[in-house]
Amino acid sequence: MRILLTNDDGIYAPGLQALRKELIQIGDVVVCAPATEQSAAGHSVTLLWPLIVQEVFDDDKRFLGWAVEGRPADCVKLALVELLPDPPDLVVSGLNAGANAGINVLYSGTVAAAIEGAFFRRTAIAVSQAYGKPKAIDFAAGAAVARKVIEQILETKPEPGSLFNVNIPRQDSGPPKGLKVLPQNVAVYQESFVRNVDPRGRTYYWLGADYGCPNPHPDSDELALAEGYVTVTPLQFDLTHHAQLRRLQQREWNV
Amino acid sequence: MRILLTNDDGIYAPGLQALRKELIQIGDVVVCAPATEQSAAGHSVTLLWPLIVQEVFDDDKRFLGWAVEGRPADCVKLALVELLPDPPDLVVSGLNAGANAGINVLYSGTVAAAIEGAFFRRTAIAVSQAYGKPKAIDFAAGAAVARKVIEQILETKPEPGSLFNVNIPRQDSGPPKGLKVLPQNVAVYQESFVRNVDPRGRTYYWLGADYGCPNPHPDSDELALAEGYVTVTPLQFDLTHHAQLRRLQQREWNV
Repeated sequence: MRILLTNDDGIYAPGLQALRKELIQIGDVVVCAPATEQSAAGHSVTLLWPLIVQEVFDDDKRFLGWAVEGRPADCVKLALVELLPDPPDLVVSGLNAGANAGINVLYSGTVAAAIEGAFFRRTAIAVSQAYGKPKAIDFAAGAAVARKVIEQILETKPEPGSLFNVNIPRQDSGPPKGLKVLPQNVAVYQESFVRNVDPRGRTYYWLGADYGCPNPHPDSDELALAEGYVTVTPLQFDLTHHAQLRRLQQREWNV
Repeated sequence: MRILLTNDDGIYAPGLQALRKELIQIGDVVVCAPATEQSAAGHSVTLLWPLIVQEVFDDDKRFLGWAVEGRPADCVKLALVELLPDPPDLVVSGLNAGANAGINVLYSGTVAAAIEGAFFRRTAIAVSQAYGKPKAIDFAAGAAVARKVIEQILETKPEPGSLFNVNIPRQDSGPPKGLKVLPQNVAVYQESFVRNVDPRGRTYYWLGADYGCPNPHPDSDELALAEGYVTVTPLQFDLTHHAQLRRLQQREWNV
């Protein structure tokens, strides 16, 4: 099995390294990942600048893959269109430092990289690791759980283009309680900005780091993850609201 | 009616100016838009840098709104959380220079700004203007069509949080043939990279400007737009693949 591994924390991030160690036990892994951190890059792609690409080798001097000075989705697109000699059987994005549940899925570079793989009809899995405070993540433990989940997803024989979002709960209260397959939470987060004045007298706002989802929907990824479960959410990239579509199609429109 | 207007081409873009002229005839319009072009920004948001914000005035010295050195989604979040004294009744994003149909919806900063508005349970409409070659867009004509479509969408009395993606066809072959309510095309695009060597000997890749969708799905936004129709696609931001979800929930999972 050929696996393309990417992330949004950058090619040297410990989460990617830990997940690679697990994945090389189940397939041939090539990495194509951003050269630098790209958190909250969403599904941005680079049109107006070139993508500088450099080959990267691991500690044992074996070819690891390519570092791309671009976004997570750039990395997957470039690997699939140009860099890889053969299309991969699986695209994996992670292991991200931090959960990607609820509407954060839409901000997430980790998930966007997986969606890009699904655009090309590759099976794609995004994997993220929640953490508490302090920010001490046991990536090795998380990656071991991630591999178990990825293996079970593959046992379901997903159709090409299938897309999955996996979240692993924070580890400071013990191992996961289990695994739940649940939809993406769609409730809004409570957010705030810090307002300040820069050294040149200009006002700036900075998105606060503390935010929460005060009313997560029951039976959603957000809530189960907070309760200590691994969550698996199958995703798709057709944003059409089909129920609304049928309603609007019944009207008369003029232009 | 209070309208928040934004875009991804930047606050000084002619498409935004043309759409503002139309929208001030149907409501109170305040602009909060990126200071610079943010095409293909997707739903990226700025976590690691401050957002410099400056007040902008129009040619008649009336308050236009805020220019934000950030992404389209940053602008909407900042306006709704911090800048606006009252929540708007409607968030409009556009008029974008270029179509946002098919899977481009996921790359689009224009659409992401509207989605951000829907996160906050505002009715939100993204509006984009397709063009051919040469790149001569009649934004005034496009904005007049956009206003007609927006008015008709509002006549349907959408629930708070409703989200719509509107595309206006290229104008060089005459006025729109009509309007079709259709789903987002999900077929893949044909893309390529230009490969070259930079002045310092490093290899780079640059995403090609020519790309097409060789096999758009019938009855999709992509095809109808190419045929000269205005398209309206109601969107939602729950990426859950619900059919897959039920299938996966019936399995035994272990972690």
